Amino acid sequence: MAGVLAERYKDHPALLIWHVSNEYSGYCYCERCAAGFREWLKARYSTLDHLNQAWNTRFWGHTFYDWDEIVPPNELSEEWGGNRTNFQGISLDYRRFMSDSLLDCYKLEYRAIKEKTPNIPVTTNLMGFYPELNYFEWAKSMDVVSWDNYPAIDTPVSFTAMTHDLMRGLKGGQPFMLMEQTPSQQNWQPYNSLKRPGVMRLWSYQAVARGADTVMFFQLRRSIGACEKFHGAVIEHVGHEHTRVFRETAELGRELQQLGDKLLDSRLDARVAIVYDWENRWAIELSSGPSIALNYVNEIHKYYDSLFRMNIQTDMIGVEENLDQYDIVIAPVLYMVKPGFAQKLERFVAAGGTFVTTFFSGIVNEKDLVTIGGYPGELRPLLGIWAEEIDALLPDQTNRIVMKQEIGALKGSYSCGILCDLIHAEGAEVLAEYGADFYKGMPALTRNRFGKGQAYYIASSPESAFVDALLANLCEEKGVTPLADAPAGVEVTRRSKDGSSFLFLLNHNAEEATVKVGPEYTQDLLTGQAVSGVITLAGRGVSILSN
Amino acid sequence: MAGVLAERYKDHPALLIWHVSNEYSGYCYCERCAAGFREWLKARYSTLDHLNQAWNTRFWGHTFYDWDEIVPPNELSEEWGGNRTNFQGISLDYRRFMSDSLLDCYKLEYRAIKEKTPNIPVTTNLMGFYPELNYFEWAKSMDVVSWDNYPAIDTPVSFTAMTHDLMRGLKGGQPFMLMEQTPSQQNWQPYNSLKRPGVMRLWSYQAVARGADTVMFFQLRRSIGACEKFHGAVIEHVGHEHTRVFRETAELGRELQQLGDKLLDSRLDARVAIVYDWENRWAIELSSGPSIALNYVNEIHKYYDSLFRMNIQTDMIGVEENLDQYDIVIAPVLYMVKPGFAQKLERFVAAGGTFVTTFFSGIVNEKDLVTIGGYPGELRPLLGIWAEEIDALLPDQTNRIVMKQEIGALKGSYSCGILCDLIHAEGAEVLAEYGADFYKGMPALTRNRFGKGQAYYIASSPESAFVDALLANLCEEKGVTPLADAPAGVEVTRRSKDGSSFLFLLNHNAEEATVKVGPEYTQDLLTGQAVSGVITLAGRGVSILSN
Amino acid sequence: MAGVLAERYKDHPALLIWHVSNEYSGYCYCERCAAGFREWLKARYSTLDHLNQAWNTRFWGHTFYDWDEIVPPNELSEEWGGNRTNFQGISLDYRRFMSDSLLDCYKLEYRAIKEKTPNIPVTTNLMGFYPELNYFEWAKSMDVVSWDNYPAIDTPVSFTAMTHDLMRGLKGGQPFMLMEQTPSQQNWQPYNSLKRPGVMRLWSYQAVARGADTVMFFQLRRSIGACEKFHGAVIEHVGHEHTRVFRETAELGRELQQLGDKLLDSRLDARVAIVYDWENRWAIELSSGPSIALNYVNEIHKYYDSLFRMNIQTDMIGVEENLDQYDIVIAPVLYMVKPGFAQKLERFVAAGGTFVTTFFSGIVNEKDLVTIGGYPGELRPLLGIWAEEIDALLPDQTNRIVMKQEIGALKGSYSCGILCDLIHAEGAEVLAEYGADFYKGMPALTRNRFGKGQAYYIASSPESAFVDALLANLCEEKGVTPLADAPAGVEVTRRSKDGSSFLFLLNHNAEEATVKVGPEYTQDLLTGQAVSGVITLAGRGVSILSN
Repeated sequence: MAGVLAERYKDHPALLIWHVSNEYSGYCYCERCAAGFREWLKARYSTLDHLNQAWNTRFWGHTFYDWDEIVPPNELSEEWGGNRTNFQGISLDYRRFMSDSLLDCYKLEYRAIKEKTPNIPVTTNLMGFYPELNYFEWAKSMDVVSWDNYPAIDTPVSFTAMTHDLMRGLKGGQPFMLMEQTPSQQNWQPYNSLKRPGVMRLWSYQAVARGADTVMFFQLRRSIGACEKFHGAVIEHVGHEHTRVFRETAELGRELQQLGDKLLDSRLDARVAIVYDWENRWAIELSSGPSIALNYVNEIHKYYDSLFRMNIQTDMIGVEENLDQYDIVIAPVLYMVKPGFAQKLERFVAAGGTFVTTFFSGIVNEKDLVTIGGYPGELRPLLGIWAEEIDALLPDQTNRIVMKQEIGALKGSYSCGILCDLIHAEGAEVLAEYGADFYKGMPALTRNRFGKGQAYYIASSPESAFVDALLANLCEEKGVTPLADAPAGVEVTRRSKDGSSFLFLLNHNAEEATVKVGPEYTQDLLTGQAVSGVITLAGRGVSILSN
Repeated sequence: MAGVLAERYKDHPALLIWHVSNEYSGYCYCERCAAGFREWLKARYSTLDHLNQAWNTRFWGHTFYDWDEIVPPNELSEEWGGNRTNFQGISLDYRRFMSDSLLDCYKLEYRAIKEKTPNIPVTTNLMGFYPELNYFEWAKSMDVVSWDNYPAIDTPVSFTAMTHDLMRGLKGGQPFMLMEQTPSQQNWQPYNSLKRPGVMRLWSYQAVARGADTVMFFQLRRSIGACEKFHGAVIEHVGHEHTRVFRETAELGRELQQLGDKLLDSRLDARVAIVYDWENRWAIELSSGPSIALNYVNEIHKYYDSLFRMNIQTDMIGVEENLDQYDIVIAPVLYMVKPGFAQKLERFVAAGGTFVTTFFSGIVNEKDLVTIGGYPGELRPLLGIWAEEIDALLPDQTNRIVMKQEIGALKGSYSCGILCDLIHAEGAEVLAEYGADFYKGMPALTRNRFGKGQAYYIASSPESAFVDALLANLCEEKGVTPLADAPAGVEVTRRSKDGSSFLFLLNHNAEEATVKVGPEYTQDLLTGQAVSGVITLAGRGVSILSN
Repeated sequence: MAGVLAERYKDHPALLIWHVSNEYSGYCYCERCAAGFREWLKARYSTLDHLNQAWNTRFWGHTFYDWDEIVPPNELSEEWGGNRTNFQGISLDYRRFMSDSLLDCYKLEYRAIKEKTPNIPVTTNLMGFYPELNYFEWAKSMDVVSWDNYPAIDTPVSFTAMTHDLMRGLKGGQPFMLMEQTPSQQNWQPYNSLKRPGVMRLWSYQAVARGADTVMFFQLRRSIGACEKFHGAVIEHVGHEHTRVFRETAELGRELQQLGDKLLDSRLDARVAIVYDWENRWAIELSSGPSIALNYVNEIHKYYDSLFRMNIQTDMIGVEENLDQYDIVIAPVLYMVKPGFAQKLERFVAAGGTFVTTFFSGIVNEKDLVTIGGYPGELRPLLGIWAEEIDALLPDQTNRIVMKQEIGALKGSYSCGILCDLIHAEGAEVLAEYGADFYKGMPALTRNRFGKGQAYYIASSPESAFVDALLANLCEEKGVTPLADAPAGVEVTRRSKDGSSFLFLLNHNAEEATVKVGPEYTQDLLTGQAVSGVITLAGRGVSILSN
């Protein structure tokens, strides 16, 4: 495959790059791409019978009788732009093929480097939630994960935090490298705002707080020509060091140098995990129906954001991760259930774990073929429900999730929308019902006791207040408590190693804030001063406390 | 031509499909398509002189000197996406060619089937107002019209009704087949709402009420893979019959079985007709100017909707239909006047008929060449007016149609917009004038007495209240009366055969409604019970009354 | 090059046209275009070393080692639609190449015509601010400038005026031809409004008032087919002369005939100039960052519009123009400073001139390579400032320009946005500061005394009220006074020759207006009547006064 790719690369490198970009609406029609795709498919399916079954080509009479009939999905075959496809199976496999092909290219380079310098770690710049590459697969071939962090001025800080946690999760919690960030501004965003004073430092420590062992920058000097000449740099076009940006960067360098290797290789400890899966995402994005309003990453972020605001440390994990280490596992919109994952979830819950999932889950297997016998398919025994129908709401429509009775923080009713599963409880307890429409009174939130644990199903996409209350309840039940008593806008994380704990306090507010911390934290690593109980942070200020 | 198409089909079937789709912005550049187009043109024009005249190629020095110089309109020749073209004549003929080519393919299949089973009717799924195929031409080669009805949750019910009437009109009122509808939801709409309880039954009877002799569904079972797996089915993915959707479908089946063949081949009787023409539509959509806001189908629907709300039965007809059977013929935006149609309209009016047309009518012939000598061209004698100029209004601009005196339901003034013809009465009576701008006081509504009848011209696109009042007046004059005294949201139609009349009452409201019907209706076919005078319909309820 | 172009033209003329159109998102991939581009580059750069330096191809490892590696920017090389490019230098040169190629084609035709008719002036239709052609270069090869003026109903009249002034500026003030305008309406605009009565005459005189020596129309007759058949004409489709449009056109013809050659070759005299440069525009539009909200032509128009509303006559000039004739030179967003232009500006100011420029100026040279050493680069000595950073504001963000003290019409504070330069005064006087954000208190308006003159820097994009006040101050200082005392909506210009002055008064209001003029104007050329001091203009009325 790498051979195919290297061959292709020779002639049209830009196409190679854009093939994997969702910003490019074009397709490739060349025979070499087709041949490479066919090789990959032969390795995966062995026979055309298997392939025809996997893609359900009986539909619309598309059975393939010869491998040479297969071409990549494009506007002369099965796709028509913007993730619209006639054959979800073909398009899904094509995305896997493209991710694998680029990965093969990376591996080729990896091996060439290792031959010469076997002891130097090899990595490549990842890009967070970049849609086109399955980074869980990539990470297996990287010595250390590294990534480029380019939030915009209006990116929620919890989204950046979630992305750091995902990058940390790629290799099971191993610290990562912050490979690129800008000291001041980007050039490729629509509106390239300057990082306000203190923000570069704050965001650098946010990376460290969530598992980075390096803080690096792109770029040292601004280039004088081509498309990144207005990308911020440590040394601006003026060419000297007497700039705000240089001073802030140099000051951060001094701080980090003074910190030494205290934090290196320390780990974050989380009892809550959120499941994120690229192939599930591709399948959801390729789905024709029920609603174009469904955005997998947004749904993931809604749950993450609740935990973030509570300062509950959370792991972002893939479906191959071991679940035993967690008390609570949340898998929003788990549309695709891969082989063995339902059983893994059952074991987790049976052993006492709490599992939360949502509408449009358990629908298909890894081939995007529906698990017949009633939604949520393989998850049905675990959840104790049957979803008979799935209603899609218009953009201005909402329904209500009405609590049958007050349960801890959950009380009254909450808005919901996008999709509404029409479910029947089959053993599960109904905690809330829909408040409107012809399915008023049908279950909207259920809890199923399964072994020693319980499994929750949220039948629609709720407002944040609902998620906040539900997760607060679940954490309380499990004794998962916030890392500190901090006001809104103050982010708290904890890294530990060798009996030392490092508590990071990050004040994203422009104003001063006060945090109450446990008595075990006795010194501030950045100031070197002793602390006790109450910490006052300047606007955009940072403290790293240790025991 | 079928040969050309079959030849093409072999290599790129998807392109064949998308060629005729307005959702696809691409073009074909292949030589075989060009050759097929040329063959079709030779058959139509015989000589290049005729072709050059038809396309007015003197403009911009585009005269063709050799057939091989002709290629399909694309971005290397004369089109540039979104119906934008340099040569309306070429683009118009290309649309005719594509409709004819697919029709030839259909005919090929038709003949192959007829050879084996000469006595079985042959049809193909039409799609209502689908823009790219001239269904009036297609219907000539179909034994029975059939179509796929997929309204969205927010499609006006009068639009669905209009589409049924158009499908019925394709073969002069002959009953048609409802070939496809979903029992629950689509998958390809942006937001695939469930059909609320009762709606599938209500919409099924709406089809019957307007001429369907079958009620069929796509699909029996949901497929497990590919792009229509979330399209509703009688049997859902759960695989059994214990679902709302199955129960509603089975119940409808029982009702229809009990109805037997009572309604089969009964006809609707209309004294009002609205003219719709695909080639006129193509020409309007291809026109460069006067306004991108002009939407032919919307203008058609505005007039249909008024009649629908009055429960005045209306035929949707093509320009080849015999007009003698009607009292009132309405042809909104009759931009293209085909050979003989003006004369047919004159005969119709001279014999006592009432004709209504609007702004931007009578402009061109079937080649999209302007009829010089003053708008509305061939319609000028019939209408007794001259349109000197055509003003296009900005989206937020309106003018007023001010009645010179109260005429029945027409009184005061009405809003209008999009285009304003600046007309002079040349024998016509001026009933209303513009209320604003430099053409304030010029005619906005005229009536011309012609033989025993009269011809109306509406010089701008009016608000619905104007159309309601005008059509109420005209129907009253002609003694065309509503089928029943029904409240808003209740649709009424009548089918008849062999001395029997079947009155359909369809309550589109979620609430109960009461309708007064004539004494001739004595029984309810669905309940089998006797009725008299006043009928109460449940929310989304249906009654079929007969004498 | 012309050979290359003629060669290309033979096969795909439409592509030739659309290559240079910003409405077309496609690219050319053919070898002949690539070969032509390479020839042009060889002539410009001689060696690949020079080319690699000019394009800064070290960035992203794009060094070219063979001329044949170079292809035009397209989606397989360096561009990706909508002015987005990886290499600004390549894309900028490609725009130069395309402008030059079409110009070569024009020159070929020019020479062919001149061979036969050496004494007849040759021109070609220009199109105002058309983005893709560098008309300052074209004008050098035209005997007389001519252009097509097609404002929409909602085009600001000051924008039309600015465009006339730009066309006049192409050949240093030489009168131009109004080659095309419509007598009534266009066909290719979204909403093709009719020119209201009097507007065609008013806009015709506006052209004359700003330097046109001809008033011509497209078209005499409306064609009967193809894409311009709904473009207005002197003779409408009705085919006779009894139309409003014909009458207005004929009446204008009579007026112009009666004026004789009185105005021919008279000149406009301006003491204020605004610099506009196509290559600067291309470079700004191609820039990746800092903000997509920056629109060069809009910024130019903001300054022009202020002067227009004051009836201060202004020249639109290129960077090759002699500046000695002006008191005030304004160069908004002078991002690209071409060789020698900074020195020309320094000489102009040193000799007593007033220079005004803005944020995002002095950044690059003619190759789009940054002038290192601190913004505004070559303009830094003249302006006495250093711009350390450039902040981009979100669309709903603004800052304030706060005057440090009242200066003439400048008082209080003003809104600003888009970009905010963070500048330091290095000799310049700070007249206003930012009112918000972390750069509150940094300079927002500076004045640098340089020799006998002064140079102003406006660090952000201000609201019009600020521009009005600043320019009013500068004009007052220089004794540049309005041509007349006219109310809002009345445009005033003056042409002169041989001791005669012609004062044009153009009332763009629908209502009557009164203007006070100097005692030197004693007669109205259109009415032939004597005038004195106060002139009353009808709505949309025009007067041409002379001494």
